[in-house]
Amino acid sequence: MPRFGVHAMIWISGWGYADAERAITAAAKIGYDYVEIPFFEPEGIDVAHTRSLLRSSGIKAGVTLVLPEQADISSTDRATVERGAAILRKALHASVGLDGDYLGGVIATALKKYERGATSKGLANSISVIRELAREAKKSNVTIGLEAVNRYESNLLNTASQALKYCDEVGEANVKVHLDTFHMNIEEADGAAAIRLCGDRLIYFHVNENHRGYLGSGSIIYPPMFRALCDVGFDGTIAFEAFSTAVTSEQHAGAASIWRDLWSDSDDIAAHALRFMRERFSDAKCAVDLVAR
Amino acid sequence: MPRFGVHAMIWISGWGYADAERAITAAAKIGYDYVEIPFFEPEGIDVAHTRSLLRSSGIKAGVTLVLPEQADISSTDRATVERGAAILRKALHASVGLDGDYLGGVIATALKKYERGATSKGLANSISVIRELAREAKKSNVTIGLEAVNRYESNLLNTASQALKYCDEVGEANVKVHLDTFHMNIEEADGAAAIRLCGDRLIYFHVNENHRGYLGSGSIIYPPMFRALCDVGFDGTIAFEAFSTAVTSEQHAGAASIWRDLWSDSDDIAAHALRFMRERFSDAKCAVDLVAR
Repeated sequence: MPRFGVHAMIWISGWGYADAERAITAAAKIGYDYVEIPFFEPEGIDVAHTRSLLRSSGIKAGVTLVLPEQADISSTDRATVERGAAILRKALHASVGLDGDYLGGVIATALKKYERGATSKGLANSISVIRELAREAKKSNVTIGLEAVNRYESNLLNTASQALKYCDEVGEANVKVHLDTFHMNIEEADGAAAIRLCGDRLIYFHVNENHRGYLGSGSIIYPPMFRALCDVGFDGTIAFEAFSTAVTSEQHAGAASIWRDLWSDSDDIAAHALRFMRERFSDAKCAVDLVAR
Repeated sequence: MPRFGVHAMIWISGWGYADAERAITAAAKIGYDYVEIPFFEPEGIDVAHTRSLLRSSGIKAGVTLVLPEQADISSTDRATVERGAAILRKALHASVGLDGDYLGGVIATALKKYERGATSKGLANSISVIRELAREAKKSNVTIGLEAVNRYESNLLNTASQALKYCDEVGEANVKVHLDTFHMNIEEADGAAAIRLCGDRLIYFHVNENHRGYLGSGSIIYPPMFRALCDVGFDGTIAFEAFSTAVTSEQHAGAASIWRDLWSDSDDIAAHALRFMRERFSDAKCAVDLVAR
């Protein structure tokens, strides 16, 4: 069975003590199994403080991040690549310190609007850094997840197919694919087919409406994708993500192009999302089981 | 009845003599009523040459453009706004010269990845320029279309609702809304509802797959939107748009974040699209007529 998680940015836009307490307490209270903690540079995570909150709330966590332009491991500039590698090592250290088993996000490139396509030298740099990270992560049983995002946020991994090929090139078994319905809605010809293509190499699944608001209030058709998750026996993390100017800081909203106030009650949208994801998964499981009967 | 059009960038990435001949001849041969001609700065359009091609091919044309960052009319810098206004006047002049009745595109702002939301002063500048342009356009019976595009390409007009409010503020009857299924798929909660909200203020409709490849080979559900077009009695332009690295120049691909070779045969994808759009429109019309019977 998958675990159900929620991105902490439903509540917060930084990771100070009050932020950590707010997000972890709220996610646990709603009934989530897991909270996705963003690793921001240079603030990072006070691991002892966050771990204590997680333990007292009885909830698991993993770490995700997006690399900034000046720390792009797909760069051809050695210092830029090394800055990215250093951030990734710090984020891995944080995930391990939080008893986490996951480190993912937009890490194969920076998250930015590129002006040209990826270069083969940049790709080689990226793969080399991720390979080294994966070997380090393996010692602590951490899986590295590569998130395929839309064309405006990366020039390299936009689809499941591209992410799988990249994983093949890395050649480490603990490097897997992270998909997100918001991005799949822009890039994939068929979201369910993309999930089936990944099979057991899919580790993380963001559920995110086409406009990044309440699940079900947009145009994404979820049942075929949830059925595909059941078909492939998905047992990773299904995590809710959404953004609104009402919650996201101006800096993060600017980076992620969040211009609209689509929702404002973090607890309400998170509770709604957990019901939505559990029900869709359960309905899909019923359907798949009926076919097999 | 709407007319069926095609964006010239299915074939070309500039507007030299050979480009103009290629796109106009191909669009006419396939059976399109209309070709959408991009106005590039500083090259512009040799109006006499293009008009002669249009007349000999028996096809109509209109002009669209996207404003570059240094000519953003939603800027708070007067010189930047004035550069944008000057480009818009030139593009209007070209459309009139081509016997066109349309000038549209991403013109209320630049097409770029903004890092912060629109300002009220910038919005006022934009509205003022568009109002003046509309008054000038009215003398030649040209309609101005404001294209709502996704959050990564503008911070101002992402939805039909926002575009309608902007039109209200301009207050000129020949300023209308231009929608595009690719962008609607990212921003609209319900594409058909967005079309109905526009009603007779919708003037232009881009049909564009979620990944910008062959129509029908992606995840967009077209029938509800075509039915909405029939419901509102749409009689503007339904135009096909798609992008692929195989055709788009490196510069334009970089600007529009086109990183994948999704198709390569321009004539084939354009012919397929015309059949697709005509059939979907005709099916939708049947459905709407049956309901009314």
